[in-house]
Amino acid sequence: MKIQEILATNDDGIQAKGLRALVDAVSGFGNVSIMAPAFGRSGASHAITLDKPLKITKVAYDPLREAYACTGTPVDCIKMATGVVGFKPDLVVSGINHGSNSSVSVLYSGTLAAAMEAAIQGYQSIAFSLMDFAPDADFTHCIPIIHKIVNYVLQNPLPPLSLLNVNIPKLPLSQIKGIKVTRQSKGRFIEEFEKRVDPHGRSYYWLCGYLDLKENGESLDYDEYYLKQGYVSVMPVQLDMTHYELKNRLEKIQW
Amino acid sequence: MKIQEILATNDDGIQAKGLRALVDAVSGFGNVSIMAPAFGRSGASHAITLDKPLKITKVAYDPLREAYACTGTPVDCIKMATGVVGFKPDLVVSGINHGSNSSVSVLYSGTLAAAMEAAIQGYQSIAFSLMDFAPDADFTHCIPIIHKIVNYVLQNPLPPLSLLNVNIPKLPLSQIKGIKVTRQSKGRFIEEFEKRVDPHGRSYYWLCGYLDLKENGESLDYDEYYLKQGYVSVMPVQLDMTHYELKNRLEKIQW
Repeated sequence: MKIQEILATNDDGIQAKGLRALVDAVSGFGNVSIMAPAFGRSGASHAITLDKPLKITKVAYDPLREAYACTGTPVDCIKMATGVVGFKPDLVVSGINHGSNSSVSVLYSGTLAAAMEAAIQGYQSIAFSLMDFAPDADFTHCIPIIHKIVNYVLQNPLPPLSLLNVNIPKLPLSQIKGIKVTRQSKGRFIEEFEKRVDPHGRSYYWLCGYLDLKENGESLDYDEYYLKQGYVSVMPVQLDMTHYELKNRLEKIQW
Repeated sequence: MKIQEILATNDDGIQAKGLRALVDAVSGFGNVSIMAPAFGRSGASHAITLDKPLKITKVAYDPLREAYACTGTPVDCIKMATGVVGFKPDLVVSGINHGSNSSVSVLYSGTLAAAMEAAIQGYQSIAFSLMDFAPDADFTHCIPIIHKIVNYVLQNPLPPLSLLNVNIPKLPLSQIKGIKVTRQSKGRFIEEFEKRVDPHGRSYYWLCGYLDLKENGESLDYDEYYLKQGYVSVMPVQLDMTHYELKNRLEKIQW
């Protein structure tokens, strides 16, 4: 296999342990470069920065790698990496996110959005997340799983405008039951705003919440189902938000 | 028809002319309340604010309305409106955006994301955008179009986890040819970063770009096709990012 050019990014910021683990995991496949947010941007989704300019700074990541911190969002990182630095990666990897990106989190995740942006631009791309929010999470067991999935994608390129969303349980490798191809679980976050009062007497709110699944048990191929059983979830992602069934119905209306 | 509770938001900020036009357009259907970003948040996508707390301020919008400015993103506005203020709207409307939200802009748009968040939470919702970026754009011709579409949705509720993305051409009403139900055009933004140098000699970049359509002419039901011909585009939107065709293919692999 030829030496691959790989671009790594994330949404937890360039100093995150998960990004370091991802770079290590894919370094056997080729030349890994990095462009990641200067600070954590969890929940950034597909946001782009339009109201202020962006800066990038070359950082000493390790002697082998070209690495940049970017003041923007994860999606800005992909745009700057390809549009300003001129990277033309064979593969973009995003993560390893500290925390799962299953179900409706797909829509809020900066990790996934970076991989989506790469797919929009025509690059092969994969997002990786570990079901552990801890900053010092143990990513060791993710390495062979990432190897397997990256190896598959490099040998069997994904179709245009698609990518993979990989979620990995927080379990020793010996307890992981295998890999399952899944769909996005139906669900929503139930918000629990934590209200506080500042020293000046004004209220403010911290956004918290938990995932509330809305699956009815009819088909069990959803990501959360397999993750809870100890499988790695590989969810193939597309970028077309059209609701075709509703489109067919609405086309019959005389507006 | 019963008096409807309507919640209006946008991504251009609570002072935007387009929001005012939207509130006026839907006020005949019921009681309109407002929660919108304190400042413009174009390109915010589905971002949520996790790294700092949120504040809301009651603002004097007009004597008839309960209106709040929120320090967060458009999606935060929906979460705060339902989770903190306790709004239970029959309908959420987002916009009128200053500028189109067709094709891949669906993924970057805060206007659309707010409407998507409302749909995730189980509310009927519609996003409206005018193909005119000017802060003082003329929204007059949008009013009867919004009437027609809101009236339809209130009488024919959309299915769960769906919403409408409405784009309106910048044309006098007499030149608008009608309403077409469309799909999301395939396309991407070609970035053109404008490089500048700050007074301290450091480079920075403004993110600019233009839409590059990737349609091959096989089917002409895409939003950009009809918008260019002078039709209003009504694109039904869903929230499941799963690529089912690829899922079927990957399920056959021995991982």
